[in-house]
Amino acid sequence: MADAGGPAAGGAPVVAVDCNGADLGPGEVAAGAALAAQQGARVLLFGPARELGPACDGVTIVDAPVSIAKASDPARAVRAEPDASIVRAARAVADGEADALVCAGGTGAALAAGLFNVRRSAGVFRPALALPLPVPRGTVTLLDVGANTEARREHLVQFAFMGAALARVVLGVAEPRVGLLSNGEEQARGNSVVLETHGELAERVGEDGFFSFVGNVEGGDLLSGEVDVVVTDGFTGNVALKVMEGTSQAVIEAIRDAAATSRRAGAGGLLLRPALGSFRDAIDPERQGGAYLLGLRRLFVVPHGRFGRRGFAEAILRARRGASEDLVGRTHAALAEAGALHERPASATTASLPAP
Amino acid sequence: MADAGGPAAGGAPVVAVDCNGADLGPGEVAAGAALAAQQGARVLLFGPARELGPACDGVTIVDAPVSIAKASDPARAVRAEPDASIVRAARAVADGEADALVCAGGTGAALAAGLFNVRRSAGVFRPALALPLPVPRGTVTLLDVGANTEARREHLVQFAFMGAALARVVLGVAEPRVGLLSNGEEQARGNSVVLETHGELAERVGEDGFFSFVGNVEGGDLLSGEVDVVVTDGFTGNVALKVMEGTSQAVIEAIRDAAATSRRAGAGGLLLRPALGSFRDAIDPERQGGAYLLGLRRLFVVPHGRFGRRGFAEAILRARRGASEDLVGRTHAALAEAGALHERPASATTASLPAP
Repeated sequence: MADAGGPAAGGAPVVAVDCNGADLGPGEVAAGAALAAQQGARVLLFGPARELGPACDGVTIVDAPVSIAKASDPARAVRAEPDASIVRAARAVADGEADALVCAGGTGAALAAGLFNVRRSAGVFRPALALPLPVPRGTVTLLDVGANTEARREHLVQFAFMGAALARVVLGVAEPRVGLLSNGEEQARGNSVVLETHGELAERVGEDGFFSFVGNVEGGDLLSGEVDVVVTDGFTGNVALKVMEGTSQAVIEAIRDAAATSRRAGAGGLLLRPALGSFRDAIDPERQGGAYLLGLRRLFVVPHGRFGRRGFAEAILRARRGASEDLVGRTHAALAEAGALHERPASATTASLPAP
Repeated sequence: MADAGGPAAGGAPVVAVDCNGADLGPGEVAAGAALAAQQGARVLLFGPARELGPACDGVTIVDAPVSIAKASDPARAVRAEPDASIVRAARAVADGEADALVCAGGTGAALAAGLFNVRRSAGVFRPALALPLPVPRGTVTLLDVGANTEARREHLVQFAFMGAALARVVLGVAEPRVGLLSNGEEQARGNSVVLETHGELAERVGEDGFFSFVGNVEGGDLLSGEVDVVVTDGFTGNVALKVMEGTSQAVIEAIRDAAATSRRAGAGGLLLRPALGSFRDAIDPERQGGAYLLGLRRLFVVPHGRFGRRGFAEAILRARRGASEDLVGRTHAALAEAGALHERPASATTASLPAP
C-alpha cells in the first residue's frame, strides 16, 4: 500500500517535531525531545537552533526559526511561508525523512500543513482531531474536537474507525467500545446526521469487527468509563470538551471556596489537598500526549501549547508508536474491509506520497 | 393581542398542575401545590384525587387519574387519551380556566399536550425548552435543551428573544446578556447555522435592545457567570447539559474517593462535608423550578420528575409569575419589534385561543 506508515529508511521510526508555538518556548519542546530520546526515540527537531540547546543522542536539530504558530489564517500562512518550521517539518514527513509529526504550534497550523504537504490518506474524506480525555475511570477518546464544524454521515462513520484505530494501536485498548454522541441513548434519538450514522455503523460493524459499536451515548457517558471512543462532529465535540473543562474547574474552585469560608471546612480543605492533588494527577492531560490528527497519510500529534517537557516527550513517544505500529495502514485496512472508504480513486483527490 | 397571557377571569392567575409522573408520586406534587398556595398561588390540580390528599385554600382538585407520563410516544398518547391528566390540564389552560401549566410528567408529554391543545404563540416557529442552570456565580439559562434536535437560523434567533424574556420576567435579570453557543468566541467560528444566526442577531438587536447580545460563547462560558442566556439547538444543548451534569458528579465522586484512600485526606473529607453541602445547596436545581417550555400561547413549566414538594412549589410560583407578568405577550412584543416573527399569518398555522 503506497501510503502505509512505516519506519523511514527502514530503521526505527523518526519523529519530526515543530518546536515553535509552545507557551514555555521552543527550548521546552527540545527538552521533551531529549527525554524521549533517552527512551530510544529518534527525533528531527525544527525550530530556532539557538533556543534549542545542544543536540543529544537521537536528536537532530534543523534550524527553522520562522514561526507561523500565531498566524490568524494558518492555511494562508502555510502557503505563504514555505520556510516556516511546521511546513519544513511536514515536508520532512512527506519526503520520507520522518514517519510522524509532533506540532507544538497548535491544531490550525498542523492541519493546514498536513493537508497541504502530507495530504489525506487514500479514501479518507476528512481529517479529524481526536483527544484522549483522562477521566476518573479510564480514558475516553473524543473525536472530532474541532477539525470539522460540520460533518456528514460518511465522515462520522470514518471517524469511528479512525478513533478505534487510535485507541487500539496508540492507546493500547484491546477491543475499543465506540459510541455515537447523541441526545439520548435510544436508537431513535439524534439529529438527522446522527440517525443516518447510527444506521450505517450498525450495518458496517459486524460481530467480530474492528471495534464494538455500543450505539448512542449521552454527554454524561464521556465520564462513565463505559466507552473508549465517542464520535461526533467538530462543533459538538468542541462544545462538549469545553463544558467538561469548565465544569471540572468550576466544581474544584467552588469546593475550595466553600472550604475557605468556614474554619472547620478550611482545615478540611488543607487536609484534603493531597487527595485533590492525586485527582489532578489522574486527569492530567500531559499523560496522553495531546490531540491526534487522524486521516492524513502520516500520524500528527498536537500537544497542548501549555504542556511542559514531560508532555512533549509523551507526544513524541506516542507518535513513534503510531508510526511503528502502522496506525495509518491499519486504519485504512479496517475502513476498506468495512467498505467505508471514499469511492473516488485516491489519485483524483490526493497526491501520492513516496512509499517509505 | 389575542394570545397575550393574563389572569384567568380577570383575577389573580391560576396555575393548572398535572400531578402524574413525579418520582415521589402525585401526593408530593399536591404537597408542593399546598406550599405554593400558602404563598398566595391559586392552583387547579389534575391527578388521581384519592392520592392528592384534602384540598386546601387556593387549591382545587380535579380527579384525573389517567396518566400518560410514561408513554413512549407522547404525541400519540395525547391524541389517544383525551382524559389523560396532562391533556385535561392543557385544555383548562386553552379554555381560559387557568393561565399557565406545571407538568410533573416530563417534557415530552408537556410539549405534545401544549402543541396540540394550547398551540404555538402567534409568529413563533418552534417551542423551545429552557433550563436555568444554577452555577457557582449565578444562574445561566440554556435553551434549547431538547425540544428541537435540529434548528435553523430563524429558530435560534427566536430562542434568543424567548430566553431573554424568561430571564427578565421570571428569573428577575434586569438586562439579560445573551450568548450564542459555538466552537470559539470569534465571530467567524461556528457551523453554518451558527454563523447565520450570529449575523442576524447582531443586526436585529440594537443598542437599547430587549437584551444585550454578547456574541459567540464557548462551552466553558456556561459556568463563567458572564452570560445569562445561552442559545443553541436542542441536540447540542442536551449534550452540553449532560456533560455538565456528568462532569460535576464525576469530580465530586473522584474527590471523595481520593479522600477516602488516605487517613489524613479522609479526615479532611469529613471536615469538608459542610463545604460540599453548601456547594450542593448553591447548585440545587429545585431552586429554579425546573425547565421552561417557551413559545406556546401560555407558559408551561416542567419540574424534574425527581423534585420534592419544595421544587414543585417553586415551579408553580414561577409559572404564576410568568402569567401575571405576561411573559408570552412581552416575548411577542419584543419579537415583533425586532422583526423576528414568523411572517405567515398565525391563522394559517395555529388555531386561536380565546382572549383571557
